[in-house]
Amino acid sequence: MDLNLIKSPADIKKLDLNELETLADDLRTVLLTKLSKHGGHIGPNLGFLEATVALHYVFDSPKDKIVYDVSHQSYVHKMLTGRMEAFTDPAKYDTVTGYTEPSESEHDFFTIGHTSTSVSLASGLAKARDLKGGKENIIAVIGDGSLSGGEAFEGLDYAATLGTNFIVVVNDNEMSIAENHGGLYADLRLLRNTKGTADVNYFRSLGFAYRYVPYGNDIRSLIKAFQEVKDYPYPVVVHLNTQKGNGFKPAEADRETFHYGGPFDLSTGAPINPYEGEGYDDIFSEHTLKMMKENPLLTVITAGTPGVLGYTPEKRKAAGRQFVDVGIAEQQAVAMASGLAKGGARPVFGVVSSFLQRTYDQLSHDVAINNNPAVVNIFYGTVNGMNDVSHLGWFDIALVSNIPNWVYLAPTCAEEYVAMLDWAVKQTGGPVAIRVPGVAVTHRSGDFDTDYSDTNRYKVDRKGKDVAIIAAGAMYSLGEEVADALAGAGVNATLINPRFLSGLDTELLEDLKADHRVVVTLEDGVLDGGFGQKIASFYGTSDVKVRNYGIAKEFLNRYDARQLLEASHLTSDKLTADIQNMLK
Amino acid sequence: MDLNLIKSPADIKKLDLNELETLADDLRTVLLTKLSKHGGHIGPNLGFLEATVALHYVFDSPKDKIVYDVSHQSYVHKMLTGRMEAFTDPAKYDTVTGYTEPSESEHDFFTIGHTSTSVSLASGLAKARDLKGGKENIIAVIGDGSLSGGEAFEGLDYAATLGTNFIVVVNDNEMSIAENHGGLYADLRLLRNTKGTADVNYFRSLGFAYRYVPYGNDIRSLIKAFQEVKDYPYPVVVHLNTQKGNGFKPAEADRETFHYGGPFDLSTGAPINPYEGEGYDDIFSEHTLKMMKENPLLTVITAGTPGVLGYTPEKRKAAGRQFVDVGIAEQQAVAMASGLAKGGARPVFGVVSSFLQRTYDQLSHDVAINNNPAVVNIFYGTVNGMNDVSHLGWFDIALVSNIPNWVYLAPTCAEEYVAMLDWAVKQTGGPVAIRVPGVAVTHRSGDFDTDYSDTNRYKVDRKGKDVAIIAAGAMYSLGEEVADALAGAGVNATLINPRFLSGLDTELLEDLKADHRVVVTLEDGVLDGGFGQKIASFYGTSDVKVRNYGIAKEFLNRYDARQLLEASHLTSDKLTADIQNMLK
Repeated sequence: MDLNLIKSPADIKKLDLNELETLADDLRTVLLTKLSKHGGHIGPNLGFLEATVALHYVFDSPKDKIVYDVSHQSYVHKMLTGRMEAFTDPAKYDTVTGYTEPSESEHDFFTIGHTSTSVSLASGLAKARDLKGGKENIIAVIGDGSLSGGEAFEGLDYAATLGTNFIVVVNDNEMSIAENHGGLYADLRLLRNTKGTADVNYFRSLGFAYRYVPYGNDIRSLIKAFQEVKDYPYPVVVHLNTQKGNGFKPAEADRETFHYGGPFDLSTGAPINPYEGEGYDDIFSEHTLKMMKENPLLTVITAGTPGVLGYTPEKRKAAGRQFVDVGIAEQQAVAMASGLAKGGARPVFGVVSSFLQRTYDQLSHDVAINNNPAVVNIFYGTVNGMNDVSHLGWFDIALVSNIPNWVYLAPTCAEEYVAMLDWAVKQTGGPVAIRVPGVAVTHRSGDFDTDYSDTNRYKVDRKGKDVAIIAAGAMYSLGEEVADALAGAGVNATLINPRFLSGLDTELLEDLKADHRVVVTLEDGVLDGGFGQKIASFYGTSDVKVRNYGIAKEFLNRYDARQLLEASHLTSDKLTADIQNMLK
Repeated sequence: MDLNLIKSPADIKKLDLNELETLADDLRTVLLTKLSKHGGHIGPNLGFLEATVALHYVFDSPKDKIVYDVSHQSYVHKMLTGRMEAFTDPAKYDTVTGYTEPSESEHDFFTIGHTSTSVSLASGLAKARDLKGGKENIIAVIGDGSLSGGEAFEGLDYAATLGTNFIVVVNDNEMSIAENHGGLYADLRLLRNTKGTADVNYFRSLGFAYRYVPYGNDIRSLIKAFQEVKDYPYPVVVHLNTQKGNGFKPAEADRETFHYGGPFDLSTGAPINPYEGEGYDDIFSEHTLKMMKENPLLTVITAGTPGVLGYTPEKRKAAGRQFVDVGIAEQQAVAMASGLAKGGARPVFGVVSSFLQRTYDQLSHDVAINNNPAVVNIFYGTVNGMNDVSHLGWFDIALVSNIPNWVYLAPTCAEEYVAMLDWAVKQTGGPVAIRVPGVAVTHRSGDFDTDYSDTNRYKVDRKGKDVAIIAAGAMYSLGEEVADALAGAGVNATLINPRFLSGLDTELLEDLKADHRVVVTLEDGVLDGGFGQKIASFYGTSDVKVRNYGIAKEFLNRYDARQLLEASHLTSDKLTADIQNMLK
């Protein structure tokens, strides 16, 4: 079948069932070819391929509106909605993002990248339809893994009361990114085992009508099920049992590895450019495993992303009951950490910067007000991390450091990170967050403190005069480079590792006034609400000039980090020139 | 019974069942007397009175650990755990807070004030117990209203998998603050109607064992039920059907009004100091009801607090399907607003500043990345609002204004508020938040813009020189006072209403450099991450001196607002003196 002839869903509505099955096979071949060369979300897209074909065969997108949860499974949707060439033509692979994107197509309703949002977002579309007297179908697609998120529950609880058409397609592949965790999953298993007939039914308990489809990769079953619920006048759940990675043996066999990945060998599934280097994930997992042996009360917590913390299946097994995966439930992870700390255990939650956003209130209300010594390790909090607009790692400094009682530490390298982690786990004075520095591991020799309980003490690594460079976390190396470059130009700069993002070393800052005219701050995040602005405010009434360097407050999608840093003057050349100008 | 003889739960364990019933009556009398003179959470405490007696009779607090959700129903718990005099002795009424508070008693495990957290917090205590090999009972108390929050679902979903003792007491009084909303509530009704025997059972679907208690205000039934689940080795839900406001006729009859209130007449329930004045809640509800008539797509959303928005039962009825209560589910409220906006409707979510914290990720990911024109009205975002540590209204500026794409407006008075609300609902350029100014309504005559689409344009209300006072939102009146005082001292200050908290009027700020040496910023919130620090950063490399006025980053409990403002120099006298000093 010439896939490039499929310009819109209308083109597949003409096909008969046999042709649709051929289409699915052809889509899989093209999809796998792109994935093997380009990388991406492998398992989720293979698993939902037939369902996507069936959805577009039965429903009339974009009049009928399909909202995909996380939308990492939307590749086939893109193929069927006018973006086929982004999959068939290697030169055009990068003309589409990895998530639904309204700027690409009228078939995409939201830019999405976090879990558990599709039902809530779609419920708004449904309510708007009802207010306007529309009749179109509203369809929310959500995976079983995403059901553990509180937003998904809130969405389902509300949507069940709409009283009008609302279709939730539950894509149950019996997996989250890793295995599922939560009591709900026993019910999903029961429903699968009873072909949907069990009385104990989470979806029915919330008020949904319910239909079960045992063969969620069988186009005929899917079409039949979708035709039955099309135009159904009440909220209904269609529960599909699908196979993650369906049709590609290596992905079917190792579903965790093939959730997301880079280019791979199409025959064996072996990665083409396996990452052999050291990662902060390894450092975290190795070090916490070691600490667990010494402290049976140390508990590492993940919210559905054990891989981010370097906790492979083997390491999870080694940690045993000292490793807790709460499912994709960041609120639970943080509040539970507060309870663990109150109960005398030592909780360490590891989370991606962007997903930490789900838990602002728990960081504040459940942990900080109680001043319980929970520890959070924040990964990918950097300009050099994930560059999809839904996954930016720029906002965590403003998020964490402005909540009272949190000590937010910014190690500059692997050695300082481990020193801070050691201290954070040992201390019981209050909550501590650590910003894992960037993505690539850097090493420094030096003498790193083992005790950070005297908070907000910055460290002067080089004592100079006229200008002080306060270079936080992953920006420290750049600060060093600039200090070196300035030294070459005859300027003896002071270089400071602030270590604490959450407060000011007012004594040191006060002392700097004596022989410094300029202070610059460097941070790996957004300027607004960040670290540097606190320094600027401190010096506001003095004669010291302050310039804050960081990223401007805006959303960027698939940006080039080098260009962004350049534009933000976060390069050695630009900073050196700026400082020389300020000193004139 | 002499209640003052009850010093700890041990003292009630000696009583027989008849004496316990007498005790309950006596507790109710004392509780009602205090509530009638002092105000507080009336309905929740009356409804859970017998259950609290039964819990302390059966379990061994503090070894067994009881965690109360919101903890607004913990008054009787306080009476039974060494704090009786705070209820029997009017002089000591204020020696306890209105929530559980570890600093008061070893029977209180967390400072709590937000909903839906008890199960998550208690699950951490349970896990810590298991790691330590303990055997005590862990009990989470949660109301039916709180079950609609995503954190409660996440907690239940996790706790169901603990595999050890974990008791969830569901206090089902068939009410949230107002009526319940969500599909779950039909299941709770079904369970009540079937005496807990229905197969469709939310709690069982998550994996809990389940027990139903039809008479949740009957001490004998309660004791029997709690004795049966004590030391139960698996997670179990005890579902109580209680009567909110039990034993006080006015509170039983009008459960919404008697959820929380000030002093009242013990015989009639009539408020003793009824508030007759105008409130921003009235302004919001009246104005949005008016707008609804002109725009059938305008939708006001609350997350379980319609009263905060002035939406009485009558007004909710008048708004009909244009008023949506999603239950206590702030994440759903914001994400749904994004969907409504995308679908062409005009959503306006109203929320208390402190509860907005639950939805940072939805403000960012679900709304702002999509730039959908959702409108949020933030109430009690002020130092002059609720002063319990769990309800502080200080953090919303740092929360909202540092997320890209949100326009965060700070009206200075009722007239400007309405002008901004009108514009926010009409425009479709992107998301707009409005910080409802303080609590008491202020009026100003003047010419308020009707169009704010040219963002970040500050308004110079008085053009002076040497010093510029940038006074945001509710602080504007203070700015005016200071400008007047300075004028009396011969200083002609510039007075600026910035209107936008989320960005800088760089052109105006640049112009000020010509003839101003000092700029001061006044904001009704925490300095860290707030409005003023952005101004300080802007002027960092110039000769203009900047001083930011606001509140220091810390948690305070039941503070005195006047003292706090004084200590923060946010008074006319202190500001005037400071500015005169800076100009010297």
